[in-house]
Amino acid sequence: MFVIGERINGMFKDVAKAIKQRDKRIIQDLAKQQIACGADALDINVGPSSDNPKATMEWLVSTIVEITDRPLSIDTTKLDVMEAGLRLCKTRPIINSANANKEKLDVCISLVKKYGASLITLTMDKSGIPQDAEGRLELAAKIIDSVLQHGIDLSDIYIDAVILPVNVAQVHAKEVLKTIKECKLLADPPPKTILGLSNVSQGSIASCKGLINRTFLAMAIGAGLDAAIMDPMDKELMDAAITSELLMEKHIYCDSYLEAYRKRGR
Amino acid sequence: MFVIGERINGMFKDVAKAIKQRDKRIIQDLAKQQIACGADALDINVGPSSDNPKATMEWLVSTIVEITDRPLSIDTTKLDVMEAGLRLCKTRPIINSANANKEKLDVCISLVKKYGASLITLTMDKSGIPQDAEGRLELAAKIIDSVLQHGIDLSDIYIDAVILPVNVAQVHAKEVLKTIKECKLLADPPPKTILGLSNVSQGSIASCKGLINRTFLAMAIGAGLDAAIMDPMDKELMDAAITSELLMEKHIYCDSYLEAYRKRGR
Repeated sequence: MFVIGERINGMFKDVAKAIKQRDKRIIQDLAKQQIACGADALDINVGPSSDNPKATMEWLVSTIVEITDRPLSIDTTKLDVMEAGLRLCKTRPIINSANANKEKLDVCISLVKKYGASLITLTMDKSGIPQDAEGRLELAAKIIDSVLQHGIDLSDIYIDAVILPVNVAQVHAKEVLKTIKECKLLADPPPKTILGLSNVSQGSIASCKGLINRTFLAMAIGAGLDAAIMDPMDKELMDAAITSELLMEKHIYCDSYLEAYRKRGR
Repeated sequence: MFVIGERINGMFKDVAKAIKQRDKRIIQDLAKQQIACGADALDINVGPSSDNPKATMEWLVSTIVEITDRPLSIDTTKLDVMEAGLRLCKTRPIINSANANKEKLDVCISLVKKYGASLITLTMDKSGIPQDAEGRLELAAKIIDSVLQHGIDLSDIYIDAVILPVNVAQVHAKEVLKTIKECKLLADPPPKTILGLSNVSQGSIASCKGLINRTFLAMAIGAGLDAAIMDPMDKELMDAAITSELLMEKHIYCDSYLEAYRKRGR
């Protein structure tokens, strides 16, 4: 599975503090630790309280590209902040995210072309997030249609079925699993699927967050999930991801399969 | 999920010793502990080395019905041992198991009628276990056809898609998940599905067995699994089962959902 590390996000206190003090070491350590634990890419989000999000994104990206050439996922709703981040990436970046609103999707597709980027698109639009899989799949089909019309390869597109917290929106989890599964039937070759995993346990009691995250990740990989924005430093979560992929025959069994996976290509 | 406790099986050393010494206390304690941990029913298997399997089954069943009225799953390939166990059950028993061989299935269906039992049927026949989901589903369809022809309600039938050890038969896990999912399309109302879970990690390195079991269980519940023969005393496994069912909206979220589930109906 393609793991995008979630930890460089200004909503975390340590990152917010590092941003405020322009402390490169904390950000670079977080990047290195996530990569050591299995991150294939790093999500970069300035967080909710940044005074100058564009300058902050530029600082974060330039701080991280000093120490790694892993792809960065530029995570913002603001297009000027997005482009400020994309411009500084040294490896093919990921745009996080577009959605099914046509105007926003068209702008993001133009950025995909301009920066050779991949694109995460959420199955939501101006009316919000559909309650069921059918609504999500309808939006996914619209997204795929737009992408193909612009001549973009679907292998550059991740569909995010938008998992909501189970403590307030319990009905959504099984609809997201169904969306991941059936999304693969919308085009051939199919689009990739992704989840912003930690959202499923947002607001749940702290002692159960990890359990909810890794259980839902196993279920989602069983449904065909290709990628997740998640915490690679959660060892039990990575163990669950590696074991789920073993059971889906994505890598070959050996007794030391956990270690073998962690050492791959490093 | 309907949990059938797997621990009263002569292949475990403590059970084999208790059988040999006719030590009721060990067997009754294992029954009580499994029920306390969440078993809805108890599997009873004399194990591979019993000299007189019929007498052993009779002793095990009569020992357990002294202390619980939970349903017992009489687990044997020998029909005389099966009937010896069924005869002594005080609550509606479970026949474990038939398969798609017509003669054996017919005999087991007659036992279902005679003892008001439920029936576990494996998707295998004289040719063995199919390699893929399509082969398993073909056998499941044959089983369902036979059952309906005999006027048996499908709600009394569990289809077991037969998971094999991932260390030697890695291709099977995803085929089993597909079978569980698509089995539900074979009849309306659909048959129930079950797994002999621990088989997936049989022969794997000891430190990974629990991880493989609970990861595959989450994936299977995501695919629609209704029941499992498993170890309810493995707390992490039960946590994964309860959390998977929470995410499938089988019970309502509360912060203490793990404790709430464990206290249900007890």
